[in-house]
Amino acid sequence: MTDLQTNSETPAQAACHLMLKRVAIDTYSENVAYMHRDCGVYRAEGFQALSKIAITNHGHRILAVLNVVDDANLVGLDQLGLSEQAFAQFGGQEGEQVHVAHAEPPMSMDAVRRKMGGERLQLEDFQAITRDIVDNRYSKTEMAAFLVASGQTGLDRDEILYLTQAMLESGDRLDWDEALVADKHCIGGIPGNRTSMLVVPIVTAHGMLCPKTSSRAITSPAGTADTMAVLAEVELSVERLQQIVRSTNGCLAWGGAAELSPADDILISVERPLGMDSPGQMVASILSKKIAAGSTHLVLDIPMGPTAKVRSMPAAQRLRKLFEYVASMLNLQLDVMITDGSQPVGNGIGPVLEARDVMRVLRNDPAAPADLREKSLRLAGRVIEFDPDVRGGDGWRIARDILESGRALAQMEAIIDAQGRRGELPALGELTLEMKAPNSGTVCSIDNLRLARIARLAGAPQVMGAGVDLLHKVGDPVIAGQALYRIHARYPADLAFAREMALSDSGYVLDSTGQPAQ
Amino acid sequence: MTDLQTNSETPAQAACHLMLKRVAIDTYSENVAYMHRDCGVYRAEGFQALSKIAITNHGHRILAVLNVVDDANLVGLDQLGLSEQAFAQFGGQEGEQVHVAHAEPPMSMDAVRRKMGGERLQLEDFQAITRDIVDNRYSKTEMAAFLVASGQTGLDRDEILYLTQAMLESGDRLDWDEALVADKHCIGGIPGNRTSMLVVPIVTAHGMLCPKTSSRAITSPAGTADTMAVLAEVELSVERLQQIVRSTNGCLAWGGAAELSPADDILISVERPLGMDSPGQMVASILSKKIAAGSTHLVLDIPMGPTAKVRSMPAAQRLRKLFEYVASMLNLQLDVMITDGSQPVGNGIGPVLEARDVMRVLRNDPAAPADLREKSLRLAGRVIEFDPDVRGGDGWRIARDILESGRALAQMEAIIDAQGRRGELPALGELTLEMKAPNSGTVCSIDNLRLARIARLAGAPQVMGAGVDLLHKVGDPVIAGQALYRIHARYPADLAFAREMALSDSGYVLDSTGQPAQ
Repeated sequence: MTDLQTNSETPAQAACHLMLKRVAIDTYSENVAYMHRDCGVYRAEGFQALSKIAITNHGHRILAVLNVVDDANLVGLDQLGLSEQAFAQFGGQEGEQVHVAHAEPPMSMDAVRRKMGGERLQLEDFQAITRDIVDNRYSKTEMAAFLVASGQTGLDRDEILYLTQAMLESGDRLDWDEALVADKHCIGGIPGNRTSMLVVPIVTAHGMLCPKTSSRAITSPAGTADTMAVLAEVELSVERLQQIVRSTNGCLAWGGAAELSPADDILISVERPLGMDSPGQMVASILSKKIAAGSTHLVLDIPMGPTAKVRSMPAAQRLRKLFEYVASMLNLQLDVMITDGSQPVGNGIGPVLEARDVMRVLRNDPAAPADLREKSLRLAGRVIEFDPDVRGGDGWRIARDILESGRALAQMEAIIDAQGRRGELPALGELTLEMKAPNSGTVCSIDNLRLARIARLAGAPQVMGAGVDLLHKVGDPVIAGQALYRIHARYPADLAFAREMALSDSGYVLDSTGQPAQ
Repeated sequence: MTDLQTNSETPAQAACHLMLKRVAIDTYSENVAYMHRDCGVYRAEGFQALSKIAITNHGHRILAVLNVVDDANLVGLDQLGLSEQAFAQFGGQEGEQVHVAHAEPPMSMDAVRRKMGGERLQLEDFQAITRDIVDNRYSKTEMAAFLVASGQTGLDRDEILYLTQAMLESGDRLDWDEALVADKHCIGGIPGNRTSMLVVPIVTAHGMLCPKTSSRAITSPAGTADTMAVLAEVELSVERLQQIVRSTNGCLAWGGAAELSPADDILISVERPLGMDSPGQMVASILSKKIAAGSTHLVLDIPMGPTAKVRSMPAAQRLRKLFEYVASMLNLQLDVMITDGSQPVGNGIGPVLEARDVMRVLRNDPAAPADLREKSLRLAGRVIEFDPDVRGGDGWRIARDILESGRALAQMEAIIDAQGRRGELPALGELTLEMKAPNSGTVCSIDNLRLARIARLAGAPQVMGAGVDLLHKVGDPVIAGQALYRIHARYPADLAFAREMALSDSGYVLDSTGQPAQ
């Protein structure tokens, strides 16, 4: 079929060769290549800023987005710079020759474009997309295009199932070789709410396997991994994790060491700055992570309230059905609880403060926050009822007995020791500031989003001792001038940011005058 | 209402100060800030990679996306680096102190999120979005989110009108102080097709005002500005442009010197790498640019064909109605022509080759491509019929008389002289390669996309003399071994890329055997 004749020399590929250079810029999951504006290859090829280029050598091949550089100290005229993770992924040596060429967009972008056009995608499409994402073939804009096209109302429940499967297949899976591996997860959005650190000791004390892996906070003031890190090591290899779970039935570890659903981690890095949290992505993200972690049974907490992620009962029920459908197709036993998300759960917001609340509950301390204790018992009870030997309705009582008897505390201490106890607990932020009630009355609402933001500005979770300590909760009577909450920070600038935010709106509403407490 | 008391020192804002540094990386329309991973501010603030931060000093304020740096030679521990355009926009001096803080996403992202949720947006929303985009407050992912959310079926015709208005208001407007300012535009997608360079001389010779501003090629092998640049200066200030048009009635200039619809330019830089070309964005982009350039009357060419942008008559008619609706609401007289887009128009693809075709038509050279001549006469005729003194149906004959009499050529020479004639014409690429017919038969189709891609890989438009010269068009009989087209390149590597692409699929189909000519 081919009848091509050339009337020129065989082209010298040498013209497209450049020397590899590592550029110490962290562009996270986007491969970026840096080329000098006066570089011969750049000029000859007609590359443009933001072009996709392919870099190859000795069988290595990566795609990267091109940034144009005007400083030869950064990247020389005969050099090709790669950002840190692109350099690591390429696996070459500085100074070695690499070949650069125009790159087609990743193949699976065709499927993304079909999604943009409103079409339904198939399992193979989602598999191709997640594979290309994990291999860093997508630019940030391509990922944003996929997320937005499939966001909100863009995925039906079968597509959400396919996406979950594809994310699951994008990484490793843990296998605990047990018929019942229990887990508990919350969709997030409620400050405090550190129930996992109570559920895990209780249900593992009951004898169930519960290897809980959690993320660090991304947009919240503390995740379970951040809070557990106050007490123990959380960055554990998969091998250590398995030893610990064999010896104590459970763990409270950071999930990032295992490559569980890596496509999810990458997509989240683009999704969060956009403020997106679509139901389809949420279901696929949570279920792929849990199944990859080897869970067979899951209690899922969906908090519902005016400043929670889910704001009405119909929305909560729709989300519940989606979770149930995908879980059932993937053979995960799922029990959904729609809970009160109208205010933060517990008193502390920020790693040290939340760890304090958890330990108070475990110690049956009278100062323990009652709402955190009660919610954790209900969740633990539902997990315990996965046990075939437990009658429906008996779970809460069993959980309460384990907590009150001190067995939950002992179990938590065992888990802390197994993971590696921290020598000295990090201190609470010494710089403090109290927000006072402007008038006497009753606390009638606390804004989750506002309090989370104030705690983050105060330094949480990077500064473990930073955050907000709630001194009054909804329904509490307060008198004018009494402190509503206390902000803790380590650095003056953090306190200034948090103060500015709290001054513009404290997040508390008192009902005696109908005026917000600012 | 405020009753805040602090029990700490007033925080020293000094902790958030860094010294400004210019980083010579061109990140185009996205402001990027570079901060060292061990910088005190970075650690204290809990900024994350891809966070939005605000940089302020003496009333200057910009938003930027954060990249984390691990090399103190790039950005020191006490420095804040800004990419080139961010540095220019900020307007500060290297070494001066700047203040950095967490930034909220740009206000108008609320509207983008509503669009993602399927809501209709109002004029004010589009105005806020385009303002924030022009002020570089959007990250690339935020722009992608807007484009995808409003792409494809996401905008109704009133929203397209609002977007057009908002884009128009985002920049300057030229005013020619004439009742009839004629223009001609094609939606693109067809290689060759340099009709503007024939329409402008013809209609200005007829006495009409036609100040044609064009873009350079973005994803095509040549734009009108690239091709005109073979013959004359095209980068002209607004003042020069106005002088030239006063003296010759018209021009063929690059539109980038004037700030016409700058929001459009920025959005296109994100849209094109994603391969998006939604009807709403197309209408808003073209009409905002034309109205900003001062046009009152426009002939719009919508080529339709299996490898054109518009692939069916119903799709072409829908697009026509959209253009007509928005144009009529904005008082632009619009005449839409749906034309044959089944193959490239003219023989040459690439700046020098296309300029050659244009000049052959103007000189009434027997070697001039008949299809380019005929199409240009039809378009010019329709523009001429905007003249109230011309009877409907007489335009084509008037245009033909102007062309055949040599008045169009004389007019083109006058425009070239007015803009600034190039001393020596750039040479055609000396490295050539012919694609031969694998069998005898008749050319039954030529793939626009494939030929455009081969011409780009050969070096067009950066290398003016590079491209593809079509030796046979649809309907031509060819015999086995006869050349179908000739690729021209300057650099061996370019020829190799183009050869590889042409070998995988030549883009020609011959009908005698039913097999594609590879």
